[in-house]
Amino acid sequence: MKVGFIGLGAMGRPMARNLIAAGHDLRLWSRNRESAATLVAAGAEHCDSPREMAAGCEAVVTMVTTGDDVKAVSLGADGVLAGLAEGAVHVDMSTIAPGEARELAAEYTSRGVEFLDAPVSGGTVGAEAGSLAIMIGGDEHAIDKVRPLLEAMGGRIRRIGPSGAGQVAKACNQMVFVSALQACAEALHLAAASGVDVGRVREALLGGSAWSKALDGWGQRMVSRDFGAGVEARLHHKDFGILMNEAMGTGVPLPIAAQVWQQLNALMASGFGQEDTSSLLRVLEQGRGR
Amino acid sequence: MKVGFIGLGAMGRPMARNLIAAGHDLRLWSRNRESAATLVAAGAEHCDSPREMAAGCEAVVTMVTTGDDVKAVSLGADGVLAGLAEGAVHVDMSTIAPGEARELAAEYTSRGVEFLDAPVSGGTVGAEAGSLAIMIGGDEHAIDKVRPLLEAMGGRIRRIGPSGAGQVAKACNQMVFVSALQACAEALHLAAASGVDVGRVREALLGGSAWSKALDGWGQRMVSRDFGAGVEARLHHKDFGILMNEAMGTGVPLPIAAQVWQQLNALMASGFGQEDTSSLLRVLEQGRGR
Repeated sequence: MKVGFIGLGAMGRPMARNLIAAGHDLRLWSRNRESAATLVAAGAEHCDSPREMAAGCEAVVTMVTTGDDVKAVSLGADGVLAGLAEGAVHVDMSTIAPGEARELAAEYTSRGVEFLDAPVSGGTVGAEAGSLAIMIGGDEHAIDKVRPLLEAMGGRIRRIGPSGAGQVAKACNQMVFVSALQACAEALHLAAASGVDVGRVREALLGGSAWSKALDGWGQRMVSRDFGAGVEARLHHKDFGILMNEAMGTGVPLPIAAQVWQQLNALMASGFGQEDTSSLLRVLEQGRGR
Repeated sequence: MKVGFIGLGAMGRPMARNLIAAGHDLRLWSRNRESAATLVAAGAEHCDSPREMAAGCEAVVTMVTTGDDVKAVSLGADGVLAGLAEGAVHVDMSTIAPGEARELAAEYTSRGVEFLDAPVSGGTVGAEAGSLAIMIGGDEHAIDKVRPLLEAMGGRIRRIGPSGAGQVAKACNQMVFVSALQACAEALHLAAASGVDVGRVREALLGGSAWSKALDGWGQRMVSRDFGAGVEARLHHKDFGILMNEAMGTGVPLPIAAQVWQQLNALMASGFGQEDTSSLLRVLEQGRGR
């Protein structure tokens, strides 16, 4: 397929590479041309605007940071929507608010263009392996049009419901995942304070009901104190803003999500925003050394 | 081996059965003789006191509820310690406070008898399959003496450290596991309130970084609203008392553990103590219907 791609960050870059590897004809737009250099060398074409990139594409994929970022590249005279033909599909894989996804979908639909919210989980490891979980809000027939693209990037591809539903699932995903990181941090912190070997505790816990990807992968980062980022913690902080807004909007109590949110605030205030979210351990350790 | 067993609850019964199945010569004591009937029919011998049971045994396994329960069957004129020969091993697989385990170990050691704290994770499913994670505090040579017994009950057998360390690991395990249940409950509750299919959300989340045994097994219980107990929630409530006492004793902040503890208090107050801990979902739902 002829496909446009915007958003060459830690996640987007390997996702774009997997699209090229699957034989798709990739067109790029990025504010900073240099960030596209290796993909251009691999055969992608760099364009002068999102609109120019989208023109002639059957689909466009975006993987940017915020809802405002998606709107900035999508709407307006130079945006993706202005370039896409009727019946083409914009697959937004960014993590944005469900309400923003619904607004964008309504705008696209009014112009006869499809819009899917399709946020992902799996981190940079999943992005590189092409094994991301993709959570989709939007119409089944639009998903069918872009299925080859989704299959090049993802392992588990699931339609959750209508527009916005993918973003609701993603908010739930971040809630479950980052809470698991915080629980690991608290458990290992307690073990250390009790004079017990934290590596052995993690190892033992992996044998029982406490098994999680968080404990396996990120727990190991905590044990070996490897806080260099895969996905930067500031992005989880951003996602919790979305999550807690949803809690406000729906009026449901999320007691531990609220607490994890505050720990992420403390993480940001501690200057760990560009490191890995396993830095939640260091937030607990502050003020008592290790 | 000739082995005594006390504690024929939802966990202890299948563990005892696995010891018989592995060819060990099982002796039992229980306050209520009837609870031992099926095991006696399978070849176990019922004894009149913990002391009488322990006499002649190379090892005794206990799987009771509280530290006081362990002391009641272990110490005193009719207790396990009075019956065990020098060099024999008492393996306490109950979940009790690390401090209580250390006290018991000191008392046993002073009489030349071994004591291991060896709490487990894996629930009734792991107990039945003989695949429990066993977290051990105590001496390596004592562990070696009872390894055939541990292998009949457990899949992952790990020495964590000296006496009490197994119980520290277990407190960490409960922290990580029950926090994961609470996170699942909050995520599914938010999804439902957002009008999104909770089964699809759980399914999608299992494909990415949010994967956990809690989401897989207990998340499914929440989706299908199957709140009948495997391990009763009141036992997790008890375990959180131990955990928060350890936090007090070591002076470490456990922000989400503290919040989960309060949700377990609310669960108990709601009358869900004898049901499954996936009932944490129902605690969130109270006051707004479903």
